[in-house]
Amino acid sequence: MTIGVCYFPEHWPRERWERDVEEMAAAGIEYVRMAEFSWAVLEPERGEFDFEWLDEAVELVGDHGMQAVLCTPTATPPKWLVDERPEILQEEPDGTVREHGSRRHYCFNSRSYREETERIVTKLADRYADDPHVAGWQTDNEFGCHRTVRCYCDDCADAFRAWLAEKYGSIEALNEAWGNAFWSQRYTAFEEVDPPGPTPAEHHPSRLLDYARFSSDSVVDYNRLHVDLLRERNPDWFVTHNFMGRFPTLDAYAVSEDLDLVSWDSYPTGFVQDRLEGEPTPDQLRAGDPDQVGMDHDLYRSALGRPFWVMEQQPGDVNWPPHCPQPGEGAMRLWAHHATGHGADAVLYFRWRRCLEGQEQYHAGLRNGDGSPDRGYHDAAQAAEELATIGDVDHVDAPVALLFDYDDLWALDEQPHAPDFDYWSLLEAFYGALRARGVQVDVVHPSADLAGYDAVVAPALHLVTADLADRLTAYVEAGGELLLGPRTGVKDAYNKLRPAPQPGPLADLVGATVDQHESLPPQIETRVRRAGDPDDTYAFRTWAEWLDADAASPLLTYAGDGVASGRTAAVRNAVGDGSAVYCGVWPAADLADDLVRPLLERAGVSHSDRLPDGLRVCERGGWTWVTNFSSGRYRIAAGDVSWLVGDATVEAFDVAVADDGIVDGLSVDRL
Amino acid sequence: MTIGVCYFPEHWPRERWERDVEEMAAAGIEYVRMAEFSWAVLEPERGEFDFEWLDEAVELVGDHGMQAVLCTPTATPPKWLVDERPEILQEEPDGTVREHGSRRHYCFNSRSYREETERIVTKLADRYADDPHVAGWQTDNEFGCHRTVRCYCDDCADAFRAWLAEKYGSIEALNEAWGNAFWSQRYTAFEEVDPPGPTPAEHHPSRLLDYARFSSDSVVDYNRLHVDLLRERNPDWFVTHNFMGRFPTLDAYAVSEDLDLVSWDSYPTGFVQDRLEGEPTPDQLRAGDPDQVGMDHDLYRSALGRPFWVMEQQPGDVNWPPHCPQPGEGAMRLWAHHATGHGADAVLYFRWRRCLEGQEQYHAGLRNGDGSPDRGYHDAAQAAEELATIGDVDHVDAPVALLFDYDDLWALDEQPHAPDFDYWSLLEAFYGALRARGVQVDVVHPSADLAGYDAVVAPALHLVTADLADRLTAYVEAGGELLLGPRTGVKDAYNKLRPAPQPGPLADLVGATVDQHESLPPQIETRVRRAGDPDDTYAFRTWAEWLDADAASPLLTYAGDGVASGRTAAVRNAVGDGSAVYCGVWPAADLADDLVRPLLERAGVSHSDRLPDGLRVCERGGWTWVTNFSSGRYRIAAGDVSWLVGDATVEAFDVAVADDGIVDGLSVDRL
Amino acid sequence: MTIGVCYFPEHWPRERWERDVEEMAAAGIEYVRMAEFSWAVLEPERGEFDFEWLDEAVELVGDHGMQAVLCTPTATPPKWLVDERPEILQEEPDGTVREHGSRRHYCFNSRSYREETERIVTKLADRYADDPHVAGWQTDNEFGCHRTVRCYCDDCADAFRAWLAEKYGSIEALNEAWGNAFWSQRYTAFEEVDPPGPTPAEHHPSRLLDYARFSSDSVVDYNRLHVDLLRERNPDWFVTHNFMGRFPTLDAYAVSEDLDLVSWDSYPTGFVQDRLEGEPTPDQLRAGDPDQVGMDHDLYRSALGRPFWVMEQQPGDVNWPPHCPQPGEGAMRLWAHHATGHGADAVLYFRWRRCLEGQEQYHAGLRNGDGSPDRGYHDAAQAAEELATIGDVDHVDAPVALLFDYDDLWALDEQPHAPDFDYWSLLEAFYGALRARGVQVDVVHPSADLAGYDAVVAPALHLVTADLADRLTAYVEAGGELLLGPRTGVKDAYNKLRPAPQPGPLADLVGATVDQHESLPPQIETRVRRAGDPDDTYAFRTWAEWLDADAASPLLTYAGDGVASGRTAAVRNAVGDGSAVYCGVWPAADLADDLVRPLLERAGVSHSDRLPDGLRVCERGGWTWVTNFSSGRYRIAAGDVSWLVGDATVEAFDVAVADDGIVDGLSVDRL
Ligand SMILES: [Mg+2]
Ligand SMILES: [Mg+2]
Ligand SMILES: [Mg+2]
Ligand SMILES: [Zn+2]
Ligand SMILES: [Zn+2]
Ligand SMILES: [Zn+2]
Repeated sequence: MTIGVCYFPEHWPRERWERDVEEMAAAGIEYVRMAEFSWAVLEPERGEFDFEWLDEAVELVGDHGMQAVLCTPTATPPKWLVDERPEILQEEPDGTVREHGSRRHYCFNSRSYREETERIVTKLADRYADDPHVAGWQTDNEFGCHRTVRCYCDDCADAFRAWLAEKYGSIEALNEAWGNAFWSQRYTAFEEVDPPGPTPAEHHPSRLLDYARFSSDSVVDYNRLHVDLLRERNPDWFVTHNFMGRFPTLDAYAVSEDLDLVSWDSYPTGFVQDRLEGEPTPDQLRAGDPDQVGMDHDLYRSALGRPFWVMEQQPGDVNWPPHCPQPGEGAMRLWAHHATGHGADAVLYFRWRRCLEGQEQYHAGLRNGDGSPDRGYHDAAQAAEELATIGDVDHVDAPVALLFDYDDLWALDEQPHAPDFDYWSLLEAFYGALRARGVQVDVVHPSADLAGYDAVVAPALHLVTADLADRLTAYVEAGGELLLGPRTGVKDAYNKLRPAPQPGPLADLVGATVDQHESLPPQIETRVRRAGDPDDTYAFRTWAEWLDADAASPLLTYAGDGVASGRTAAVRNAVGDGSAVYCGVWPAADLADDLVRPLLERAGVSHSDRLPDGLRVCERGGWTWVTNFSSGRYRIAAGDVSWLVGDATVEAFDVAVADDGIVDGLSVDRL
Repeated sequence: MTIGVCYFPEHWPRERWERDVEEMAAAGIEYVRMAEFSWAVLEPERGEFDFEWLDEAVELVGDHGMQAVLCTPTATPPKWLVDERPEILQEEPDGTVREHGSRRHYCFNSRSYREETERIVTKLADRYADDPHVAGWQTDNEFGCHRTVRCYCDDCADAFRAWLAEKYGSIEALNEAWGNAFWSQRYTAFEEVDPPGPTPAEHHPSRLLDYARFSSDSVVDYNRLHVDLLRERNPDWFVTHNFMGRFPTLDAYAVSEDLDLVSWDSYPTGFVQDRLEGEPTPDQLRAGDPDQVGMDHDLYRSALGRPFWVMEQQPGDVNWPPHCPQPGEGAMRLWAHHATGHGADAVLYFRWRRCLEGQEQYHAGLRNGDGSPDRGYHDAAQAAEELATIGDVDHVDAPVALLFDYDDLWALDEQPHAPDFDYWSLLEAFYGALRARGVQVDVVHPSADLAGYDAVVAPALHLVTADLADRLTAYVEAGGELLLGPRTGVKDAYNKLRPAPQPGPLADLVGATVDQHESLPPQIETRVRRAGDPDDTYAFRTWAEWLDADAASPLLTYAGDGVASGRTAAVRNAVGDGSAVYCGVWPAADLADDLVRPLLERAGVSHSDRLPDGLRVCERGGWTWVTNFSSGRYRIAAGDVSWLVGDATVEAFDVAVADDGIVDGLSVDRL
Repeated sequence: MTIGVCYFPEHWPRERWERDVEEMAAAGIEYVRMAEFSWAVLEPERGEFDFEWLDEAVELVGDHGMQAVLCTPTATPPKWLVDERPEILQEEPDGTVREHGSRRHYCFNSRSYREETERIVTKLADRYADDPHVAGWQTDNEFGCHRTVRCYCDDCADAFRAWLAEKYGSIEALNEAWGNAFWSQRYTAFEEVDPPGPTPAEHHPSRLLDYARFSSDSVVDYNRLHVDLLRERNPDWFVTHNFMGRFPTLDAYAVSEDLDLVSWDSYPTGFVQDRLEGEPTPDQLRAGDPDQVGMDHDLYRSALGRPFWVMEQQPGDVNWPPHCPQPGEGAMRLWAHHATGHGADAVLYFRWRRCLEGQEQYHAGLRNGDGSPDRGYHDAAQAAEELATIGDVDHVDAPVALLFDYDDLWALDEQPHAPDFDYWSLLEAFYGALRARGVQVDVVHPSADLAGYDAVVAPALHLVTADLADRLTAYVEAGGELLLGPRTGVKDAYNKLRPAPQPGPLADLVGATVDQHESLPPQIETRVRRAGDPDDTYAFRTWAEWLDADAASPLLTYAGDGVASGRTAAVRNAVGDGSAVYCGVWPAADLADDLVRPLLERAGVSHSDRLPDGLRVCERGGWTWVTNFSSGRYRIAAGDVSWLVGDATVEAFDVAVADDGIVDGLSVDRL
């Protein structure tokens, strides 16, 4: 329950450092992240190292009672290195080289760059192996940012072929697994398989999915190189990586297996502008969307099943979204509490001070360019004080699991079959309904142990193996409550259709099969009605499946007089001590609530009344955070409550923290 | 009047083939197209051929009383061939190579690929030269799909120069013909002329038009290579090619001259989404636009002036448009009847069974992935039964010709001078008005013999030679009724303006000239009024010409108080026994009807009342098809009629077939 | 006060020339521009020159009492030259070569092309050095058109490094000036600095700004090469260049320093479509926007502080905007008067006759393709007659300066931080308010001598040096009235932030600093209220700064109940004998007027009532032009006035010219 900051001493006159560090400590800051992007300062010319400035900065941090988190500086190879070994650069599918001049221009599979990485990381790790002020390390920075997970260079081509040979053993096995009879795509040798370049028509989806997996695996390997070198020097260091929000091309579960701590970079008002469908509302422009941010908190918390860090927390306005509105009053404090409620143990603001040079001049810091406090500084200091008062809190104990699989994301991204079919948005349709009922949610991989969850929600379990089907069946038979969304069970692990109708190996569990699917633009009416109830209709969007119920009971049928009218849209099937619901449409908010509420009731999960947009509650370790991402004022009705922060009246962009779990039956009135 | 299907036995276990073929025969299918895209299966490695599987499949088809249509498999050269002879690959204008991994990656002018083509086609033709079950061949597949008609590789550069040298004889003649004094574009030798690559500003329109012609001619040549090899082996085979809908870069008239049979691939609900202006209506999403599909039927019927085939008929939902809505109930049957009414003798559904692998997994077949019947199967079987009952029907005898010229399309595509100036859409503005009056229309090249037509409509006869002007004048003088649209007679055959005002050599026939043209965005009011009638106004769009009437009588003048107010927008000129109407605007539907109806009356062409959108009638060989592409219900009033299929009440997406010609005076009531 | 025309004799039969030239003279034309783009005609093969045709054309022009303006034909190197020396071609950032086939395909830094330029210019200058009919020269044509100022070839890379070495002296100085500690961007040698190519993320803004400056300087150098060669041959010739409208990448002030006369190419109805935000109104489609065109007139007039020419005046419909509407009745005459009112001494229509070949066939001329007069001819002849009657007029004497700096434009273009932040549009927000009060405006560089101006308006003085701050302070102290807009004083000359809060070195003059900035999309309400007046609110857009007033008095505060509510949006500070207003928002029209009107009153600048959109007045040398760019009819109330052209009732798209200065107190009634 603490606060930190990201600091770039190399951008500031050395005579200023001491005052900066003093002011950090005065704000209650405990962690200072440094050395990111500093390669050219650490090694101005090949073999000529300058660590002295970093030594001094670490020393200063330690002297003021704080701890340093250092970064391997590999996200920005210097120009001298690029000129000497240009083969390290990434390539676009058409062969265009990604040049020096910004960041992340190196290829994860470059043999040369792995050598250089080993050299600089070893040098740094050796230097600080015994430094008492260095708590741990961040590897590189935001792997894959700027669409750099997937490279198409010759090193990648070689590595891809080796990855395929390792996976499939023989080219015949690959041809069979992918289904290469289609369009004469059979290969006679692994050497024939290229990265997917420019082609007249679309690529083979199985080839694309394996390229996505291979590319993600390349980053996993590259990260492990850092981790191993650091652990070897000092096994007491924690090693983390700072992931990104709603990031589509890198499997965070897989990278996390090599980490001690998962962290991510949270920019709420940026994400609502560039990673959320539709136009953001004025409130979202001022504070972001709590479910968008919350789902990432939950994903990264669940990756290792323990508290995570926000390694970069938005400190004010930021430079990279389309617009840079000022956050609402108190929003920077709100975000720290919200993260803590979702399971963060530390929130580091990015950055200490607005940078006067380079690409991020229009990115706020806690302090202004002249060193004076900016809006975020006051918010951060207040959050630090409040979180210190709360002290240590237990890990979040979520009763519901949401299944999230990068393979499904990649497969659906390649074949959305509707312009607005976005895997993240579909997940949020279900996640938001859970969160609007105050329920904590683990966002876990389908391979996770589900036994401890009262309910499991899988919005789009697209690639399903027989083994996964067996595990889900056992979960339900043992009393679990399962909710499945559209496009479930469509494909095998190689991104091929099965002959059997959807949901394939889950058909028995679901008690129904999919007869037809369709995707629909807005000009076609998309409503379903509750089975047996002609008047009660709900909106859905984008995707619709016509179900043939077998053992299952219909829950929803299609309304209107179109071609789908009267066909079944959702079913429920009681199996063993539990039940499975299959919803063949992408539910709008009212329908999602009408699916989630009975699920929670059947599963015996405590939940609140339906909360208004923007207001969210989180129980964690006997505390409850009420976070208001809206400009509305709300009164919380939750019985006799003791508030450690705020009170039952929650102002715009404000927070209240109760020292009890108060979600069950909680209701809210707008003032 | 029959039904067929496209089948890929190589995608399925051999033990399943017999049952598949039995079920085809049971549905009344008579033709089975096979071997498309099968090169890598037929020749897994260079020189190692495997025909045995195809032998067996053909045999099975024949054994069940059906006939096979085979395809030359050249649309998908295998990877081993691409790696061995990479020079066969197409290039983008900027030199980017179109790689292996989808289809159509070869260059039509590649000398290497012509060798390879000759090798594989010869091998196949030899193999089946005496097979009694092979009725004919389809060359390649959908020439030019995925924007592949135009390639920019070195082979193409050489071929272009040779094509120019052949056409112009001397570089001086080319400089003169194109008008290369402009912007210092004179060449001193044919070797200096490149394919049109990336340039700072737009290209010379005459160079672009010749590159479009050359590129189309390259495909004509390449197709002829197939045809000649096949005919040499067995002159009894028919040879066809499957063209595409509304396809802009390949001259289907020119390719067809080498064919015995013209066929095309019809996907009504796909085309309304990606080839029709504006948002499709819900009805169009369910069944397509009958005029969009009908104009292609008429184009391909007219190309050789005899019945055509639909080689691929949409069987249900398809994968490639933005959305994949389910077709309306019965739509797959509707389309087969509609095609037949427009002159098709066979309709082959694509494909037999949903493919489990590769790029088209989200494309329905008549059968599901597990082999069970899908929606299209029932429709196809019903259509087969009904069409068999009807039996053979004479060729369509259309009273009206619509002039369509790829040269005009290319020239206007290069210089639209309005973002929404689309040649196809302009054609449809006139074509739709004819079809809404129940008139059959031949879509013919301007060089066609027009003597047999009662009326000729030329919506945009942009490039006009003196010879064409003479022929049209003779046609009118002999009593023909001619309707010309905007942008007529603007250019010579080299895409240059003439000094004389538009319509150039047609000015005498029209009795008027164009003083000014303009293109207009929607914020400017675009209405015309009937000459002499201040109240009766009609909307137009996009393009307006101000006419100076000479011999002609004004028909329309511009309404409003803008700069064009009162100027003449359309004229009629009586010449000899006929008359010519020149309409200088792009008419909206009411105006188009008001131009077409009097034309039909003057020409003595039988026609119906104006039909509602979506409902269309076709007379063919003494039968009349009433096809309802809408969700409305209609009653047909047409006197005493005997209905072979359906009756006078036509339900949503339904069909009725009368055993008489009933268009004259037919009217329709919405129920 | 005269009229001219652009003529391409090489496009027409020689037997026609004499008649063309006679008809020019008959229309009152005095100048004929020729030889643009004529290289391939002048030198059909290397070393084989043909000047005879041009000799004859010049002679004809002279014989009819007119003067020739010749052009260096370098905008279109012929294909033989390109094939011989392909290294002259421009390159895109990704290495794509800009090929022959349109125009402007050469690189300004190409050593080869400079040799070729010297060769052809010398040849031409020698040929006409003693010709009495050649008045002067235009260098090349529209430098930079089609985004060609910035090239990325190897010659440019070398030249850029030399330019940087010259500017910074040492790489350490460059690293310091740009701030290359950020993201490890330090260089160890100038050889390491490349043109900005494709990178994963955005480029360093300081590097981009210097590349923009370097690129513009390259054109300045290249132009000087022409100028020096021409002056050497005949110092009596004037040398000009024809700039473009609203052109963003070339510093016209810098190029102009080497010229005798500044000219530009004015296409009002084209510019409203492709260079103005939002949808043009019907009136704008018919005549353009007088402020958009006027600001360019004023910019190019101010570049040398003397009368300019319109070297190309739109003659009717043009080919390159999205649509080509016909100009309103009389618009071509209107534009000539409007230019003259803004300070033009000559207006040359482009072109004499519609070209029958090449890329500009859809571009009108004064004469049709058959040589008959087109709409523009009548307008041009009338304008010629009227302007001849008026005779010589003194230079415009503008009381207000608008500061315009290409460095600011480039810096803000690189970092707009709002999708609709456009430097030109922000300038026009203030410029339009001045022009709507009938005030003449010089558009000058911040380094200009400001002493003579009653008021100075600087809408976005983004990069501010201490020296500029001192000069502005001195200006105000001496009684000047200064109005500053948002984003002023943010950056230093290297595109880096200063530590001090905005407006940096102007903070004392302004008496306030900027606490926060934000950019806002339309869904957030953007209104300010007059300080102390709760009811009087004004709309703003896009950008907002929250000011901390120190010595200054608040003028505006933010309205509404959002995060900015009540914060200061604009201030005024009295300093010495003048005052400075800082407006932190982008004002909509009402607010801009409410800032400008008091400024004019404080500064004692004569002005009219607020004029309606489209109607504008210009005083010049004792005359007043009233120009109506709208379809409305207006009556001018301005006391007792003698009208030389028209009268006090100004019809749609009409002009009136009074022989007195009548702006002070002028008002207008719509009829
Ligand atoms: Mg409170
Ligand atoms: Mg019926
Ligand atoms: Mg008047
Ligand atoms: Zn790579
Ligand atoms: Zn080619
Ligand atoms: Zn260059």
